[in-house]
Amino acid sequence: MSSNREIENLIELMAKLPGLGPRSARRAVLHLIRKRALLLTPLADAMQEVAATARECLNCGNVGTGDVCDICTSEKRATGELCVVEDVADLWAMERSGVFKGRYHVLGGTLSALDAVGPDSLRIPRLIDRIASEHITEVILALNATVEGQTTAHYIADQLEGQVRLTSLAQGVPIGGELDYLDDGTISAALRARKEF
Amino acid sequence: MSSNREIENLIELMAKLPGLGPRSARRAVLHLIRKRALLLTPLADAMQEVAATARECLNCGNVGTGDVCDICTSEKRATGELCVVEDVADLWAMERSGVFKGRYHVLGGTLSALDAVGPDSLRIPRLIDRIASEHITEVILALNATVEGQTTAHYIADQLEGQVRLTSLAQGVPIGGELDYLDDGTISAALRARKEF
Ligand SMILES: [Zn+2]
Ligand SMILES: [Zn+2]
Repeated sequence: MSSNREIENLIELMAKLPGLGPRSARRAVLHLIRKRALLLTPLADAMQEVAATARECLNCGNVGTGDVCDICTSEKRATGELCVVEDVADLWAMERSGVFKGRYHVLGGTLSALDAVGPDSLRIPRLIDRIASEHITEVILALNATVEGQTTAHYIADQLEGQVRLTSLAQGVPIGGELDYLDDGTISAALRARKEF
Repeated sequence: MSSNREIENLIELMAKLPGLGPRSARRAVLHLIRKRALLLTPLADAMQEVAATARECLNCGNVGTGDVCDICTSEKRATGELCVVEDVADLWAMERSGVFKGRYHVLGGTLSALDAVGPDSLRIPRLIDRIASEHITEVILALNATVEGQTTAHYIADQLEGQVRLTSLAQGVPIGGELDYLDDGTISAALRARKEF
C-alpha cells in the first residue's frame, strides 16, 4: 500500500524471496530506495548479469556461467574423487571449508516417495555415468544428516557398491559445540564414533 | 564461495539488505537462479524501474515517482488534516488501515541528542511551513510510542501550540510498539479514537 504501482510491484516480488515476508520486503524496498546509488542500482545490475549468464553445469549440477562449471573444468581439482551433495548451497558450504580438492555432483534434492522424486529426477543416472567416464575411485556421500538425506545416500551406495570406495562425512560434535545445545541424536552418534584421546 | 564472480557479487549485495545475512542471501540467490524467468528477471526489471523513477516527495517526504507524491497531489485526499509520521514505512502502515483520508508529513526519523538529529534534519521546518500554506487545521501526531517518538511529538506540539488542533493516536498502541508492527485493525481503532494531544 505504497500508493505507487512500481514500488508495490517491487515489494510483491521481494516478498517471494525465501526468508522475506511482506513486512521485511517493505523494509528492504525502503532501504533500497534510500540507498539507490549504493545498493539498488548495483543490485539491479547484478541480477541482470546473473540472469543473463548463470546456468546449471551440465556435468555436475553446480551453477556457473558456462555449459560446464569452473570446478568441473579446473585442472587444479583432483580427479578420481567425487563429493555428492543434495544442493548447490551444500556445495558452497563444502567449498567454504576449503578442505575438499576433488569435484562435486549435485543431486538437486533427495529421494521422496511422497513427492514422487525418483532417481531420474535427481541426477543419479548422470552420477553413475560419471563414475565410469571420469575414472572415479572414491565417492564421498556428503548428504544432510536427515532421514531423506540418509535414505538417498543408502540408495546411491547400493547402486555403486563394489565399483568405488564409498565414504560419508563423520558425525559428531561440531567445533565449538556445547553438549547441552546438541540434540540427542548427535550426542549418541558422537559417542558411538568415539576415538582414542 | 560459489567460485563465480557474478554470483558472488550478487550474494554480497543481497546480504546488505535488512533482514538478510550471508546465509539467507546465498539461499535467496540460489532461489533466484532457479526461478530465473519467474522471479530473477522480473525483480531485476522492477529494481531498475524503481531506481529510475522513485524519489522523495518534496512536499511530504513520502516516496513516489514525481517531485510531489500521489497522496499530496490527489484531489480525493482531505485538505486541512495532516498526519505526522516518523518514516515512510509508517505512512504505508497508516494507508493499509485505510481510515485516514488526509495527507501526511514524513519526518524521516526522531529527534536524538545522542545522534545529533535536530529539528532541521527532520523536515520539521517544512512541517511548520505547510501548516500555514496548506491551511492545516488538525495535525495528528502518529509517532511511535517509544521515548524518541514521544519526545519528538512533544517538541512538535510545542512548536505548533495554538496554531492547529493537535491530536495523537489513541492508547491502544502498545507501549514500546512501532506502527509498522501493528495489525491494520489496531491502527484503525487507534485512529478513530484519537484524542487531543
Ligand atoms: Zn560442474
Ligand atoms: Zn507527498
